[in-house]
Amino acid sequence: MRMVDLIIKKRNGNAFSNEEISYIIDRYVGGEIPDYQISALLMAIYFQGMNFKEVSVLTDKMMHSGETMDLTSISGPRVDKHSTGGVGDKVSIPLAPLVASAGLIVPMVSGRGLGHTGGTLDKLESIPGFSSRINKKHFVEYLSRSGAVIAGQTHNFVPADKQLYALRDVTGTVESIPLITASIMSKKLASGTDGLVMDVKTGSGAFMSSLEDARRLADMLVETGKFMNKNIRAVITDMNEPLGEYVGNSLEVYEAIEFLKGRGEERLGKVIFQLGSHMLVLGGIVNTPEEGITLLEEKIKNGEALARFGEILKNQGGDPAVIENPERLPISDKKEVFSLPYSGYISHINTRKVGLA
Amino acid sequence: MRMVDLIIKKRNGNAFSNEEISYIIDRYVGGEIPDYQISALLMAIYFQGMNFKEVSVLTDKMMHSGETMDLTSISGPRVDKHSTGGVGDKVSIPLAPLVASAGLIVPMVSGRGLGHTGGTLDKLESIPGFSSRINKKHFVEYLSRSGAVIAGQTHNFVPADKQLYALRDVTGTVESIPLITASIMSKKLASGTDGLVMDVKTGSGAFMSSLEDARRLADMLVETGKFMNKNIRAVITDMNEPLGEYVGNSLEVYEAIEFLKGRGEERLGKVIFQLGSHMLVLGGIVNTPEEGITLLEEKIKNGEALARFGEILKNQGGDPAVIENPERLPISDKKEVFSLPYSGYISHINTRKVGLA
Repeated sequence: MRMVDLIIKKRNGNAFSNEEISYIIDRYVGGEIPDYQISALLMAIYFQGMNFKEVSVLTDKMMHSGETMDLTSISGPRVDKHSTGGVGDKVSIPLAPLVASAGLIVPMVSGRGLGHTGGTLDKLESIPGFSSRINKKHFVEYLSRSGAVIAGQTHNFVPADKQLYALRDVTGTVESIPLITASIMSKKLASGTDGLVMDVKTGSGAFMSSLEDARRLADMLVETGKFMNKNIRAVITDMNEPLGEYVGNSLEVYEAIEFLKGRGEERLGKVIFQLGSHMLVLGGIVNTPEEGITLLEEKIKNGEALARFGEILKNQGGDPAVIENPERLPISDKKEVFSLPYSGYISHINTRKVGLA
Repeated sequence: MRMVDLIIKKRNGNAFSNEEISYIIDRYVGGEIPDYQISALLMAIYFQGMNFKEVSVLTDKMMHSGETMDLTSISGPRVDKHSTGGVGDKVSIPLAPLVASAGLIVPMVSGRGLGHTGGTLDKLESIPGFSSRINKKHFVEYLSRSGAVIAGQTHNFVPADKQLYALRDVTGTVESIPLITASIMSKKLASGTDGLVMDVKTGSGAFMSSLEDARRLADMLVETGKFMNKNIRAVITDMNEPLGEYVGNSLEVYEAIEFLKGRGEERLGKVIFQLGSHMLVLGGIVNTPEEGITLLEEKIKNGEALARFGEILKNQGGDPAVIENPERLPISDKKEVFSLPYSGYISHINTRKVGLA
C-alpha cells in the first residue's frame, strides 16, 4: 500500500476499505506518513466525502489511537451531550448536573473556545479553584459519586484527532462533515459514553451556518453511530443569536446557576430541557421526551439539580460558595470581565447585570 | 494575507489575484509556507481549476523563480517544441537539427524519463561522450553556432517547478491541467524561447489518456500563451501505440539518425513533419504548414539536417561517428540494451534490428 495511491483513490471518489483507513491512521500517528500527504488527503475528502461506514471506521481508529475510559464498573446508563459550538452556549454547565440528578452517568470531556465560540472549560475555570485536569482514577471516582464530571482532554486522549485537527485548522479542511463527525465522535466515545445527544447548532453564529449543512451533519452523526452500535440522537438548534442573556466566561457560569435555581431565560431553558429529555430517553430512564421534561423540571424545583452542581464543583476543586454568592465570580465590573483568561468569545452582549456584585 | 485563507478561497472555487499567486510562490520557494499547506492548495486546484489568467501569472512567477536564459543576442526566430511524453517518442532528437537547418533557433531544455515514458536526455546520453550539462555561456554559444542545443536543467532553473513537481508527485496532484500547463510553460519560457509547438499526446500510452483531456490541456496551453504574449500552437498526436519502430534509449537514437538519413518510419515522420512545419510557421520562415513540410523534406534530402545533428553532437561532446557507424551505439546485443543507464521506459518493443552491430 502506498499513501499516494490512497490519496488518488479518494481524489477519484472511491471509498476506502477498513484496512486502508487503519493504514493511514496508524502510520500518521506513528510519524511515518508526512503532514503534506495527509493534508492533500483531507482536501480530497473535503471534495469527495466519505460514506457512513468509512466514517465509522475512521472514528473507531481515531478513538483507539490513545487511551480510552473504561466506565463499565459504574452502574447506570452513560449518556453524554455534545454541541457543535455557539455564542453564549453554556448548556453543558447546568445540563450535566441536571441529568445526573435524574439518574444518568455523564462522562463529559469538554473543550476550549474554538473560533468565535466559547469553551465550557474556559467558563468553568472562572470559578475560583475549579480544575478540569482530572486523572483517570478521579474521573471514575467522581462519576461514581456524583454522576457527572466535566473534564479536559488528558495528554494521550485521541492523539489522532489532535494531530488531524491541528492540520485541518491550517489547511482549509475544517469544514468537512465526515471529518467533523469523526472528530466529535472519536472523542465522545473515547470518554466511555454509550449514548450521545448532539446539539447541532445552525445559523449565523454557528459553524454550520446553513440548515442544510446542519441536517447533513446530524444525519452523518446518527448514521455513523448506528454502524458503531451507539445510540445517537441529534437536535438542531438555532444560533442566529446568542443563547441566553450572557456571553462571557464567568457571566455564563452565573447564568447557568440562575437556570438551576429555576430562574433561567426561556430560550436557554428550552434548549436544555430538549437536550436533557432526549438524553433521558437514550438512557432508558423515561420513555418519551415529554416525560423527560417533566422529570427534569421536577429536579430543578426540588433543588436536586443545583445540589448536584455543588457536588461537581466540590469534586473538581471549585468553590461551591459561588452558588449562593455569585459575587465570588470575577464579574464585579467590566474591567474584570475582560481581564479573564478567556479564549474565543466575542464579549458579553448584555451588560444589564454586569454590576452584579 | 494568510495562506489558510488562500487555500479556502481556492477550495471555494474563487480565482486568485496576481498578488495572491506571487505571495504563494515567493513564500513557498523562500521556505516560509510549509509543504502541507501547498499540498492542500494543489488538491484544491485539482478540483476547482484555475482560469487562463491565473495560469499565466503562475507560469510567470514560476519561470522567474530562478535564472532564465537571455537569448536576445542571437538573431533568428526562437521556437521550441515540447511533448507531454510518450513511449518511443524520440521526436526531439531529429526535430531540433531539422528545424535548425531550416533557420530556427531551438533552445531545447529537455527532461528525463517520467513514469513509463522515456526522456530525450537519457536517450542522447547513450551516445558516447554526449553531455547534457551545458552552462549558460556554452548554451548561448552553441545556439549561435548551430541553431540548436538539447540540454538538461541547470541547478537554479525554475526551482519553483522542481519543488512543486516533487510535492505533486507524492500527493496525487500530478493530473491537474492548470498545474501541468504552468509546469511545462514555465520551463520552456525560462529557456528563452518565444514560440512553442506543443505535442499533446493522447491514448493508452500517454499521460492524457482521453482525447477530451488532451484537448483541454492543448486549449489551456494556447490560451495561457496568449495572456503571456507568446505564440503557442498545440498538435494532438496519437499515443495508443509506441511511436516509430524502436523503444529504448540507444535504439531510439539509431532510429532518429535513420530518419535524418531519409529512412524514417512513416508514422514517426508524419509527427516530426507536422510539428516541425508548425514551428516554421511560428518562426515566420514559411506561411503555411504545407510550405513548411516541403522545406523540411528538402533539408532531409540535401543532408543539411543530418549535418546539423553532427554539429550538435560535436558541440555537446558526443561522438559524431555514430552517425555513420551506428555500431558505436551500445546496442550490439540484447544484454547491452538492457544494461543501459536508462530510466522510465518499458523495453524495446521491436527486436528485429537489435542485432544491428
